[in-house]
Amino acid sequence: MIKTVEWTNEGIRMIDQRVLPTEEKYLMLRSWEEVAEAIKKMVVRGAPAIGVSAAMGIALGASQSVGMSVADLEDDFTYMCRVMGETRPTAVNLFWAIERMRERFNREKSKTNSVEEIKASLVDEAQKIFQEDIAANRAIGRFGADLIADGDTVLTHCNAGALATAGDYGTALGVIRGARDAGKRVAVIADETRPFLQGLRLTAWELAKDDIPVTVITDNMAGSVMQNGKVNVVVVGADRIAGNGDTANKIGTYMVAVLARKHEIPFYVAAPISTLDLTLKSGREIPIEQRDSKEVTHIRGQQMAPDGIKVSNPAFDVTPNDLITAIITDRGVARAPYIESLRKLMTDSSTAATSRD
Amino acid sequence: MIKTVEWTNEGIRMIDQRVLPTEEKYLMLRSWEEVAEAIKKMVVRGAPAIGVSAAMGIALGASQSVGMSVADLEDDFTYMCRVMGETRPTAVNLFWAIERMRERFNREKSKTNSVEEIKASLVDEAQKIFQEDIAANRAIGRFGADLIADGDTVLTHCNAGALATAGDYGTALGVIRGARDAGKRVAVIADETRPFLQGLRLTAWELAKDDIPVTVITDNMAGSVMQNGKVNVVVVGADRIAGNGDTANKIGTYMVAVLARKHEIPFYVAAPISTLDLTLKSGREIPIEQRDSKEVTHIRGQQMAPDGIKVSNPAFDVTPNDLITAIITDRGVARAPYIESLRKLMTDSSTAATSRD
Repeated sequence: MIKTVEWTNEGIRMIDQRVLPTEEKYLMLRSWEEVAEAIKKMVVRGAPAIGVSAAMGIALGASQSVGMSVADLEDDFTYMCRVMGETRPTAVNLFWAIERMRERFNREKSKTNSVEEIKASLVDEAQKIFQEDIAANRAIGRFGADLIADGDTVLTHCNAGALATAGDYGTALGVIRGARDAGKRVAVIADETRPFLQGLRLTAWELAKDDIPVTVITDNMAGSVMQNGKVNVVVVGADRIAGNGDTANKIGTYMVAVLARKHEIPFYVAAPISTLDLTLKSGREIPIEQRDSKEVTHIRGQQMAPDGIKVSNPAFDVTPNDLITAIITDRGVARAPYIESLRKLMTDSSTAATSRD
Repeated sequence: MIKTVEWTNEGIRMIDQRVLPTEEKYLMLRSWEEVAEAIKKMVVRGAPAIGVSAAMGIALGASQSVGMSVADLEDDFTYMCRVMGETRPTAVNLFWAIERMRERFNREKSKTNSVEEIKASLVDEAQKIFQEDIAANRAIGRFGADLIADGDTVLTHCNAGALATAGDYGTALGVIRGARDAGKRVAVIADETRPFLQGLRLTAWELAKDDIPVTVITDNMAGSVMQNGKVNVVVVGADRIAGNGDTANKIGTYMVAVLARKHEIPFYVAAPISTLDLTLKSGREIPIEQRDSKEVTHIRGQQMAPDGIKVSNPAFDVTPNDLITAIITDRGVARAPYIESLRKLMTDSSTAATSRD
């Protein structure tokens, strides 16, 4: 099992996703500031993994707080939450995880005056978020497996696998692993996903490790492989899903969705409920992170572009709901109109059993 | 003026497009075999530039032939034409240029028994092909300028500029330069164009040199910039255009065409008449070159992908005619039905004056 992020006695252990697959290097992060930096620098990436890492980072920071009173601890905690919330703006799981930690803090504060008890509860909450993420991805895999036919070739963009989550199954790759574990033969075409090359580096590595057949293509080949009839279904992850189903995901996802529609290929989004942001009416309200132009102009430190060239580097784009065939969550599969189906999944977890068909 | 390929007294001088823009290195090729190798290895690329280089290479090889009789020279010449024709399969300008050289050889052979005269005529023919390419691109620029409005932002894919032709204007970038020279303000968004990064490395370099505002994006951002209303028109080059207007061009062109249609953005192909292959009924008959997987898995020699991963690396795709708003040639602008308009341009050069509107 791939361990993306792990709570240990020494600190938070993370696989360094910047150097995979040519190096399998693990970092031991011993302070919450190091965790925030790791999120910002994309040592760890993927919306659910960011959420889990942020929760662990806050738990680590709280446990190291020298505050003698609950009020002192709360000051430290609040500051950590704010800084952690400024690492990456688009993945809503980050804010969801911080909110979970804050709620737990408040709950404990009303029950105890013991700084040590509150610290322990925050570590417990981070562990829970970790465990729940693993379980959510298994559920996504079970629901999603029903949407994949034996012999299908699935195109995926970026990495929405073990490395984008707490580990194990992943979201979009969870659907693929779910189909495989349900006895279906499934092959994958992975977009390489510039500029960070999550597909070429991470998805390829994960799937090869799992003996799932994978072929990597450059992003601009997605149209060509669909035109040539090589893709049966598209499954991608999500960084934030608005109330109407509009989905922010890795830059290029929108392009893949347009191509899938053109070729009448089903286009599925796979994400845990923690990726839903029902406070937003539509995708237009989702903040899109702009990253350093050097990610485009330089590859592993090597300059590829002319000096001083202007570059655009939005990390995400928004796929409008009308291009999405269904959204596969850990509580079941939502279909249009998403404004109703997503709200139903969010409020009524009992729908999970009936929404598989 | 950018000099892509040049006939000199010492040999054929080429700018090495593999190392641009971080190195501006010129190679002096002193044998026809070196020219063939340079085409294969993409020292020089772009359909018109390949045609010009092949013609020069054959002229160079013929001029170095030690054959004492016309028959000996013809043996050498025929062999060189065959090897040169095996360098790259998709760009039809290669075969067109070889055919031009062969026709000239046959014409001279019927007039003279002098090996030296035939050699001189072949050098003359290669020079003519070079000069005609420069003139053709200027004409494309004039015709294309009418299709660009003042203030337009043009998205282009790959490099169809000076570096893709004999030099100077280029085809798709010729349209942009034509608009600029007609007094229009024009900005460019350049797809980086993996795996060879012609956009990031070459188009950005060319346009920056020419003070034309250019912003580079990764290929998977093309949908996003269109969705955000940043693109008014798309202009791309071509490697081969079938009789019905279906166009083979750099991998990813099809994707851009689908996105342009989705956003109701005009999609233009710019290419000289030598890129037309009216012997082919449709794009399905165009041979698509598959290149080494290392172009995808390695960037400037650095391994990015897991060992042994499967990769698809078609160098081109085919854009069907129904996604093409117009084809801008050196003899005028062709519109659907292309089966008629292209044939008319090919046979009747006098249409040029009237087809500008």
